[in-house]
Amino acid sequence: MSKIVHVVEDIMSANDDVAAQNRAKLNGAGVLGINIMASPGSGKTSVILRTIAALKDELRLSVVEGDTAPVSIDADKVIAAGMTAVQINTGGNCHLDANMLRQALPELLLGQVDLLIVENVGNLICPAGFKLGTHFNVVIASVPEGDDKPYKYPNIYRGIDALILNKIDLLPYIDFDIDYFKRGVQLLNPNLIFFTLSCKTGEGLDAWVQWLKARVRAFQAHEDSRLHEWAHHHA
Amino acid sequence: MSKIVHVVEDIMSANDDVAAQNRAKLNGAGVLGINIMASPGSGKTSVILRTIAALKDELRLSVVEGDTAPVSIDADKVIAAGMTAVQINTGGNCHLDANMLRQALPELLLGQVDLLIVENVGNLICPAGFKLGTHFNVVIASVPEGDDKPYKYPNIYRGIDALILNKIDLLPYIDFDIDYFKRGVQLLNPNLIFFTLSCKTGEGLDAWVQWLKARVRAFQAHEDSRLHEWAHHHA
Repeated sequence: MSKIVHVVEDIMSANDDVAAQNRAKLNGAGVLGINIMASPGSGKTSVILRTIAALKDELRLSVVEGDTAPVSIDADKVIAAGMTAVQINTGGNCHLDANMLRQALPELLLGQVDLLIVENVGNLICPAGFKLGTHFNVVIASVPEGDDKPYKYPNIYRGIDALILNKIDLLPYIDFDIDYFKRGVQLLNPNLIFFTLSCKTGEGLDAWVQWLKARVRAFQAHEDSRLHEWAHHHA
Repeated sequence: MSKIVHVVEDIMSANDDVAAQNRAKLNGAGVLGINIMASPGSGKTSVILRTIAALKDELRLSVVEGDTAPVSIDADKVIAAGMTAVQINTGGNCHLDANMLRQALPELLLGQVDLLIVENVGNLICPAGFKLGTHFNVVIASVPEGDDKPYKYPNIYRGIDALILNKIDLLPYIDFDIDYFKRGVQLLNPNLIFFTLSCKTGEGLDAWVQWLKARVRAFQAHEDSRLHEWAHHHA
């Protein structure tokens, strides 16, 4: 068993090295990268499409779509919205890793991009362990998933910078205690920025979009020096 | 890399061996086992609680709860419903495996059980690869997850015997094309038994419960010889 553990440690260390290289490439091109993680069906692609619609006149966006299967449903939606999208088919694997993103970066014409959005594979467990080299980690939760998810899947909430609770339009039809959900999140990650929104109605989207735009501007103006260093607590 | 693949094959083969042992133990005790897999928040525990309520006067049930974290939210609910529950904390791991179930079986007093329900970790990808030794695999999908999930996460649908589409009470509020969903499932698994239900309203639950009860009765009457053999296509 210790041999297997050792192999896993080697893989994680190699992943961190490649993630650092990805971060350096993004920094060199002036591209802010965000890694969006969520359970299947929480609305990752819907949030991305809403974000594109809100920001496409102000920022140059590009999207990487992580999928476990070769279907390009999400990538097609992004392209239909007028953006560049690169699909990574993980071939059944349950998460993206830094090497997969490294292989996608040359397709992205980074010199013409301000904000790179990476949509990770739908999974609340495995993506938490693999840094990609992006600057911010974002988790999207959704009301129908239930208010107990931070208690049941704590690891994914620990290393993130922002949390979106999507599908708040369904709150009238579902038992969901926002205070209980928030308490669980704050236990794990007291400094998290928290957005509640609905991609269906548009409610709450502006706060998320303005926060994201401000992060890109601060990054490009070098106002947040941490973003230009490789910090191991960021992924 | 070939060395690592070899290790993985060894692990999978060892897992199949332990799964066959689990199946033999269940068969010896006359216990039908089902493995319930789903995305986080699809309603696995709610379906189990509804199933307990419907069957507890007719069948002796026991539940194994797979969790990635030490919280016992789901196990507590099952115990509050008057059933025996054993929790398996995977310690962050993304799926149950046969060895974890083997370690739980001695806690279950199998001689006093007709139906063992195993609630796998909430994950639409990883549990598909690991047989547990149970007789039937069931996936629970839910309306808010979206109708495209069979196309995006095909592997989990391939080896299963029954599919439940939960939360149909939310159909009026969500764009979900049941025909599109069904076509995706049938492409992958034409022989699947398909139930649509709502744990909230109770609609559709009876068909699922009656099917499950009939499976237990047929198993205990030795009417389905396949269930008493170890078949590699079952998990």
